[in-house]
Amino acid sequence: MSTGVSIIAAGQSSYGLFPDRTLKELFYDARVSCFHTLDRSLEPAAIDEAFIGTLGTGGSQLGNFAPLMMEAAGLVGPPATHVENACASAGFAFRAAVMAVASGQAQIAMAGGIEKMSDLPRERNRSWLGVSGDVEWERLAGTNFPGIYAMMARRHMFEHGTTKAQITGVAVKNRQNAIANPKAQFRRALDLEKALGAPMLADPFTLSDACGITDGASMIIVARDDIARQYTDRPVKVLGVGGGTDYVAVHDRPTMTELAAARRAAKQAYDMAGLGPDQISLAEVHDCFTIGEILSYGDLGFCETADAGRMISDWTTAADGRLPVNVSGGLIGKGHPIGSTGTGQIYELFHQLRGTAQGEGRQLSNPSVGLAHNVGGSGGVVAVTILGAA
Amino acid sequence: MSTGVSIIAAGQSSYGLFPDRTLKELFYDARVSCFHTLDRSLEPAAIDEAFIGTLGTGGSQLGNFAPLMMEAAGLVGPPATHVENACASAGFAFRAAVMAVASGQAQIAMAGGIEKMSDLPRERNRSWLGVSGDVEWERLAGTNFPGIYAMMARRHMFEHGTTKAQITGVAVKNRQNAIANPKAQFRRALDLEKALGAPMLADPFTLSDACGITDGASMIIVARDDIARQYTDRPVKVLGVGGGTDYVAVHDRPTMTELAAARRAAKQAYDMAGLGPDQISLAEVHDCFTIGEILSYGDLGFCETADAGRMISDWTTAADGRLPVNVSGGLIGKGHPIGSTGTGQIYELFHQLRGTAQGEGRQLSNPSVGLAHNVGGSGGVVAVTILGAA
Repeated sequence: MSTGVSIIAAGQSSYGLFPDRTLKELFYDARVSCFHTLDRSLEPAAIDEAFIGTLGTGGSQLGNFAPLMMEAAGLVGPPATHVENACASAGFAFRAAVMAVASGQAQIAMAGGIEKMSDLPRERNRSWLGVSGDVEWERLAGTNFPGIYAMMARRHMFEHGTTKAQITGVAVKNRQNAIANPKAQFRRALDLEKALGAPMLADPFTLSDACGITDGASMIIVARDDIARQYTDRPVKVLGVGGGTDYVAVHDRPTMTELAAARRAAKQAYDMAGLGPDQISLAEVHDCFTIGEILSYGDLGFCETADAGRMISDWTTAADGRLPVNVSGGLIGKGHPIGSTGTGQIYELFHQLRGTAQGEGRQLSNPSVGLAHNVGGSGGVVAVTILGAA
Repeated sequence: MSTGVSIIAAGQSSYGLFPDRTLKELFYDARVSCFHTLDRSLEPAAIDEAFIGTLGTGGSQLGNFAPLMMEAAGLVGPPATHVENACASAGFAFRAAVMAVASGQAQIAMAGGIEKMSDLPRERNRSWLGVSGDVEWERLAGTNFPGIYAMMARRHMFEHGTTKAQITGVAVKNRQNAIANPKAQFRRALDLEKALGAPMLADPFTLSDACGITDGASMIIVARDDIARQYTDRPVKVLGVGGGTDYVAVHDRPTMTELAAARRAAKQAYDMAGLGPDQISLAEVHDCFTIGEILSYGDLGFCETADAGRMISDWTTAADGRLPVNVSGGLIGKGHPIGSTGTGQIYELFHQLRGTAQGEGRQLSNPSVGLAHNVGGSGGVVAVTILGAA
């Protein structure tokens, strides 16, 4: 099965801190990178529809984001929609673009994502990101995202015997992967002992368990399967797109070691694709904190929830393991420009599935199916995308 | 032609200032109002997908809006997406919900919209709304929305001889219509002479030419045509949904008396519906300022741009005229809770097309086709929806 939709082009700006580049310039970087992956010309006017993810307004003080970014990309005219689903904004923007094509409304649609976090001072970023939790029940009680994810980590350790070394091992793995990614922000190896001894963030997390502050943008173009090869010799198939919601506050959920929204999103995507977790060749998952990746293994069906920690300690998900996860470096190594992350993950899968991943030794050997897992808040809203090599 | 999608239920909270009701309560009001229009039971779990429009985060300090509003409506589980396209947020949320059903992703989808403007002081509302203009080129130069729309009004007067009495006549008409609408905010007649003599807002506008500050929410449920009658005996058909973008700053556009985004959106919706402006029975248009409605007449093809003022002075668009526009009271009479407005317009059309409009003397006589026109900013992004009686 499939959605009848293919990716024909995918681009991404470098991820990092770019105080000297504007939001519009970053989005244009993604646009140039995207159009460069085409094999034949695509007139901007051929793009029928666009969805652009950003948390944005709080940070940049710029509103009416969708037409503003269409301007920045030289694409004024077609309908464009700003999608804001916290850190899952671009995953849902992509999903909506796929639906636009599948519905017949569009033949070709664009999904983009962007965030320029360096426009805000660090303290202001923290308060701004905090509204994506349950403000009335979590934030006003003093809880923040490091604290919420730390509780999930503690609970995983308590219920399943997951170790701190396994959890922080996610950061070690992903930082290692980022070294070979020329567009990643943190291209330095992380030593496990040093990471465990780094300044405490929220027990059991040290600073090494969290992603950083990142600027970046990404852009994906999708088209009906039957016209995809007019623009590229190597399209990538969209096999399934899923989404799900859950209670925003973790205390309203029956468990802290599973994200119900992720399980709903995964089921929808797997059902649409007509395949299961054992057919996934590689995954890009939402490691905003190290535990996020551990949770994803259970939620995506890669293993039982209780076994997730061992996927790290036995190197199953390392770049040369059985199921490479976050070969891009993930949110911790590559960076997490909030609104760009979802389409940034899809950018990585697109290139891996085509065999065009940049950077020495980064390209996996003939992966056939890739999965992206993009989480908003602490799991209030999750998008899962499954792509297949053509 | 059609989209293959029907509206099976539509609800709206009262519009007004409700400082004692929370955002979540207002959305629940819309949910109750919506489900009450069903003839047979719809299990919440049958809703496969949702899109919720709000400008919201700035005003309420609540983020992760989509899952938060799903919680408030008792609909946790399915994928939900927060759409933010300035004042056109809900028009685009509706359009995305229609695409979700047309794509086969969903059988039944919800589109909602909400804003609680009274959570902010009046001055703060002004600054918050201002970001939906082109911040770098308009707002930082001191321009605001009253000023931008006033320039459009001045230009319409200069180019086409439109009179101040015609422009302000929009407010007189819409306030008159609002009197019979039990859910409208401003249910008092407006005298033209008094309106023209009211305190100046931005020449040629007095305070009477602008909409107010409003709280409110709305919710629409759409389903595949072939299952619509499982839930209602009187569905309303979605004939066409269109969208368009334009340069956000008015100085980048070739004209100030047309909104290119509205013309693009209208063309797309008319083409999809397979009909033209002369087949429209009634319209709900975006009169955030009086000139907005005058502009819409030309952009929607109801008349030549130059003749738009006369549509008001000869009462063509009065409730008992040839083409009633804003029988709900419009944004000026019914109210303009930013993120709710688009689906609030569709709520009005739904009831008019079914013959169930509440309020003495409000129901039009057998309208067959209704159009909604929802503008973001000063025309950077516009959605147009065309509905037909079943």
